[in-house]
Amino acid sequence: MKLNCDLGESFGAWTMGQDEAVMPWIDMANIACGFHASDPSIMATTVAMALEHNVEIGAHPSYQDLVGFGRRSISHSPDEIRGLIWYQAGALDGICRAYSATISYVKPHGALNNDMMKDPVILQAVMEAIASYREGLPLMLPATLQADQHRDLASRIGLPLIFEAFADRAYDDQGHLMSRQEPGAVHDDPETIIEQAMSLVTRAGLYSHTGQWLPLTADSLCVHGDNNHALEATRAIHRALHNYRASP
Amino acid sequence: MKLNCDLGESFGAWTMGQDEAVMPWIDMANIACGFHASDPSIMATTVAMALEHNVEIGAHPSYQDLVGFGRRSISHSPDEIRGLIWYQAGALDGICRAYSATISYVKPHGALNNDMMKDPVILQAVMEAIASYREGLPLMLPATLQADQHRDLASRIGLPLIFEAFADRAYDDQGHLMSRQEPGAVHDDPETIIEQAMSLVTRAGLYSHTGQWLPLTADSLCVHGDNNHALEATRAIHRALHNYRASP
Amino acid sequence: MKLNCDLGESFGAWTMGQDEAVMPWIDMANIACGFHASDPSIMATTVAMALEHNVEIGAHPSYQDLVGFGRRSISHSPDEIRGLIWYQAGALDGICRAYSATISYVKPHGALNNDMMKDPVILQAVMEAIASYREGLPLMLPATLQADQHRDLASRIGLPLIFEAFADRAYDDQGHLMSRQEPGAVHDDPETIIEQAMSLVTRAGLYSHTGQWLPLTADSLCVHGDNNHALEATRAIHRALHNYRASP
Amino acid sequence: MKLNCDLGESFGAWTMGQDEAVMPWIDMANIACGFHASDPSIMATTVAMALEHNVEIGAHPSYQDLVGFGRRSISHSPDEIRGLIWYQAGALDGICRAYSATISYVKPHGALNNDMMKDPVILQAVMEAIASYREGLPLMLPATLQADQHRDLASRIGLPLIFEAFADRAYDDQGHLMSRQEPGAVHDDPETIIEQAMSLVTRAGLYSHTGQWLPLTADSLCVHGDNNHALEATRAIHRALHNYRASP
Repeated sequence: MKLNCDLGESFGAWTMGQDEAVMPWIDMANIACGFHASDPSIMATTVAMALEHNVEIGAHPSYQDLVGFGRRSISHSPDEIRGLIWYQAGALDGICRAYSATISYVKPHGALNNDMMKDPVILQAVMEAIASYREGLPLMLPATLQADQHRDLASRIGLPLIFEAFADRAYDDQGHLMSRQEPGAVHDDPETIIEQAMSLVTRAGLYSHTGQWLPLTADSLCVHGDNNHALEATRAIHRALHNYRASP
Repeated sequence: MKLNCDLGESFGAWTMGQDEAVMPWIDMANIACGFHASDPSIMATTVAMALEHNVEIGAHPSYQDLVGFGRRSISHSPDEIRGLIWYQAGALDGICRAYSATISYVKPHGALNNDMMKDPVILQAVMEAIASYREGLPLMLPATLQADQHRDLASRIGLPLIFEAFADRAYDDQGHLMSRQEPGAVHDDPETIIEQAMSLVTRAGLYSHTGQWLPLTADSLCVHGDNNHALEATRAIHRALHNYRASP
Repeated sequence: MKLNCDLGESFGAWTMGQDEAVMPWIDMANIACGFHASDPSIMATTVAMALEHNVEIGAHPSYQDLVGFGRRSISHSPDEIRGLIWYQAGALDGICRAYSATISYVKPHGALNNDMMKDPVILQAVMEAIASYREGLPLMLPATLQADQHRDLASRIGLPLIFEAFADRAYDDQGHLMSRQEPGAVHDDPETIIEQAMSLVTRAGLYSHTGQWLPLTADSLCVHGDNNHALEATRAIHRALHNYRASP
Repeated sequence: MKLNCDLGESFGAWTMGQDEAVMPWIDMANIACGFHASDPSIMATTVAMALEHNVEIGAHPSYQDLVGFGRRSISHSPDEIRGLIWYQAGALDGICRAYSATISYVKPHGALNNDMMKDPVILQAVMEAIASYREGLPLMLPATLQADQHRDLASRIGLPLIFEAFADRAYDDQGHLMSRQEPGAVHDDPETIIEQAMSLVTRAGLYSHTGQWLPLTADSLCVHGDNNHALEATRAIHRALHNYRASP
């Protein structure tokens, strides 16, 4: 179970997140590609930092919307979706080349991620874009109760998948993250977070907000580094996973 | 002697140039990468069109300045120069990948091109960026009387060069293009254009505006497709080169 | 019955529309404000041209989406809607000030216009923004079968309305423009266009695509200047209106 | 002697500065207008906050360069300079209108400010733009040893001036701010800062880095709110000025 985190989300003179602090504790860095955040210089710095810590590099492409941070849905044709993924994955890969590295997966950001989980036409365009970008390059997407359908579609297109889940967010009974607007949507308590992480690792599932069991097979946990609280949770999950692996 | 042309310079709903009309007559397409013009959809269309006509694809990176079309100098550190070349070359290469193609050279656009020819620090940053992007990837730059210095610098960095010259522009006695503001800077007469093209091909040089001989070794001629007049000149140069090659 | 036209939609080095050719034939210029098209220099040129032809100046604000030309819906809160209208109306008014002029109405562009006609929350935010910008400044919006509701809402907010209709577009039975994707959505025939224009002028309504009578009271007709065909239709409508007014 | 501060420099999801903390201690807020920082929502929030604290609102226009934060010189024609000032001053004024307020001065930002102080053509374009925007609207510019020339030019154009000086920065013998790259360029010591502020207030000048007296008449001191240290200095200057005014 690897830890992934959104990184490189500063832009020009503006700073976001604590990339240096979180990098040592994660396995996979989802690096912004300039459409919702980041710029070539920040991408280069972030790639160098990931390599230094032996962290895998993933492209984190988005709709083109700096002022909205890629969080607003914008209608796109499948051709446009493919174009923006090729462009952004390539841009990050271009920076990786200079460091003799390469991207090892693609995780869509924000509204693009939400939209692909709701609209099969968008999901298919995303999958086709990644499959035609490089054979064997995986898509990282949320683990849901529809994972089998996603596996079917991906296997028809010839694309590996990496399923991610969240330890610090409550799930509804349909297996989706609860909206941050709702009370109880975000776990603050370290014990609850560790418990949910370990449940995903050891029992391939977790309990929903109402106490219903959700079978969710995750390959990676999404963690956060944007504030000290999130950073502390990330370190706690890292340690819990480490202890679990080290236990006889 | 190959013909190269700046292409893919439309943006969103705006059209520029007659890409379809000029593509059959050229050998190398310098494709805009989204910083001064183009967007992922236009880049994909342009790459597909180039491949259809067996035209080589070159990245045409620029300062980030859509409203100024990359024609305005903007101060950058060497690190920033490298970052923007990796980003844009990678972005175009990402789109090429989807078509099982790849970029085969890099030609900086507009003010970035002018600045690298004036400032050795910028030229070195451009060269280093291309060399670290992919071994053997050439930089296309203007043929000038300083070509030997450019060859020296490139060979130290380990970078092939492609020198380009212009058949439809007058040169000053220092071997630079005359400013478009000056009278006589642009050749309108097809005979003069063909004569200058053939002089570059057969005698490795041309006569300056004042009639001075300039020894300029060019590997490629830069032609234009942005209006019917330019298009006619491009076709005429293409035919003259073809006849020359076919002659016994 | 005044003629209005979207103008100033060039951007940087890219040209769109035939502003100079259409300006003499219209009464009201909807000028782009930099979010979907235009830049300060183009806005200044367009304002000067409108004043020269004694044409009223309207702000044509949009979602911030240059690459999508403001045609894609982007989710906004009412606060954000108000902010972007104040900003863009003010920006155009700032340029008008330099010419001792001022904007005399606001007509939302593209997806923002569509969204306000579908979503009462957005329409109210648009109306409030214009009312708080300057007392008595009107909103230009499409004439529909819901005009009474729009009048009610506007009168509660204290805002004059200018209703616009189209002479060159077919309407469906619900009083909306037919989608351009559907056959017959755009009238090409000058006679049909003139007939629909005169029907709006003399009988305050028009026949829908299926032949149903639609009572639509319009204060202005939206005409186009983006190609020679549209330009010809604009001139024909102008002349028909002129002859009608001149007739005893 | 009024205190002015650059504010509203957040952008979308990114935060910069401690606007709420510094607002109670200043008299004039230089508010970013969207070209180097800010967006319509942030501008509206900042305007509201300034009005609440009875702080004057100044437009802080810039070259259009978000990723470079307006700190990079970009070549512009005088027409373009005028256009970008009208646009940005108008945009901020548009937001002010909604709050029944208006801008009361213009202070160019970053590279545009530096360029106007070096290039009389740019300075004249800036002055003309402001004078034609609204009669009596002042330009805020740095107090230098060339203040008389600036007054002459402004009086020919019909423009009031507000001269600003810095309490926390060292000046060279030519009366310019020392570059931040040089040692001793920024005063960290509260006593030095207060001393320099009071010298400007009571003796209309200050001592340069080398101890030379510089006669500089300032109407306003530029203070900072981007970190706790700067904030503390701002409060100290505020209190020192207050005590001075209150003293018999």
